[in-house]
Amino acid sequence: MKACVLYSGGKDSSLIAVILEKLGYEVELVTLNFGIFDSFKPAAESASALGLKHRVFKADRTLLENATDIILNDRFPNNGINYIHKEALDLVSQGYGVVADGTRRDDRTPKLKESEINSLEGRRNVEYITLRGFGHKTINNLADRLFEVKKEQTSMENNSDYEIEIRHLINEMEEEQAADNIFPGHIQSRVVGWRNKI
Amino acid sequence: MKACVLYSGGKDSSLIAVILEKLGYEVELVTLNFGIFDSFKPAAESASALGLKHRVFKADRTLLENATDIILNDRFPNNGINYIHKEALDLVSQGYGVVADGTRRDDRTPKLKESEINSLEGRRNVEYITLRGFGHKTINNLADRLFEVKKEQTSMENNSDYEIEIRHLINEMEEEQAADNIFPGHIQSRVVGWRNKI
Repeated sequence: MKACVLYSGGKDSSLIAVILEKLGYEVELVTLNFGIFDSFKPAAESASALGLKHRVFKADRTLLENATDIILNDRFPNNGINYIHKEALDLVSQGYGVVADGTRRDDRTPKLKESEINSLEGRRNVEYITLRGFGHKTINNLADRLFEVKKEQTSMENNSDYEIEIRHLINEMEEEQAADNIFPGHIQSRVVGWRNKI
Repeated sequence: MKACVLYSGGKDSSLIAVILEKLGYEVELVTLNFGIFDSFKPAAESASALGLKHRVFKADRTLLENATDIILNDRFPNNGINYIHKEALDLVSQGYGVVADGTRRDDRTPKLKESEINSLEGRRNVEYITLRGFGHKTINNLADRLFEVKKEQTSMENNSDYEIEIRHLINEMEEEQAADNIFPGHIQSRVVGWRNKI
């Protein structure tokens, strides 16, 4: 069965991809792009380093604009990120038996509600799989064992999260660096290869 | 790292055991027994058929008596089963880096609260892993692909759930068949071997 994994190049989405592959699914990593900025490149490099199939899903920029409106209204990212993630799962799931992401037990955003999961699975006739059974400590330990991971300050060049294109859009709409007031800076972990291939 | 999986011989606990093994953990399946009835035998047979290491953890019957008291008071199994499952995880986790069970996304019982998970992980310095990222449709499809599964009416002889010893205790305390009024009859699926080994 073909399984699509929403992929950012981080530890979480890399780990769920590996689990699904070990379970015998034909895994395809998918990164969305809204035509604002080529933020998918770090994810494509991580996928290639792991030897996993990767594709970029070109989505309508309206979706990103809607998410950005929510975020600018809230002056806070969570609701907008939840919105775009839910829509992303809906978009990419067509043609797959399984759609997955790397959301884990202690993630608050993005996170689908129980009713949203049932809606996605029912409407799209797809199975939704996540890392919800795993906490951050387990994921960190597994990633340390399995992957070469690069830790660095998030920048426009090293990250494939939705945040990057939203930041570009906000800076365009408001002023240079305006997005820095909304998205807190953080250290990110990007998977750059296998340490111990399984 | 050694991982202990609370094991009943069913699809869910078999699947989480296989996932942990594929991730490189040294997996031990553990079935609790409270000295009332040798209900661990079906689980031991399932483990052996899958080629997985299995042991019986002999626990104090007080724990089962407490769970039975809760259930007799409620005339309904859920709270008592939640209680015994939480205590079981606490007991078996000693000496392991990981403790796991086959609870899935749509399970309501047994299910640990977020605070109970944090307490278990913190007090026992253990990582708790479940199948919470998987829904019943996914688990049924995976089990159909991976395992030979035997479906049959649950009886005292073919099941290793906590329910069996609790039923014995209730029948002892009240009258023959009294437990039938509290536990609804159901069709169970027991793993009896590999269909496609991964």
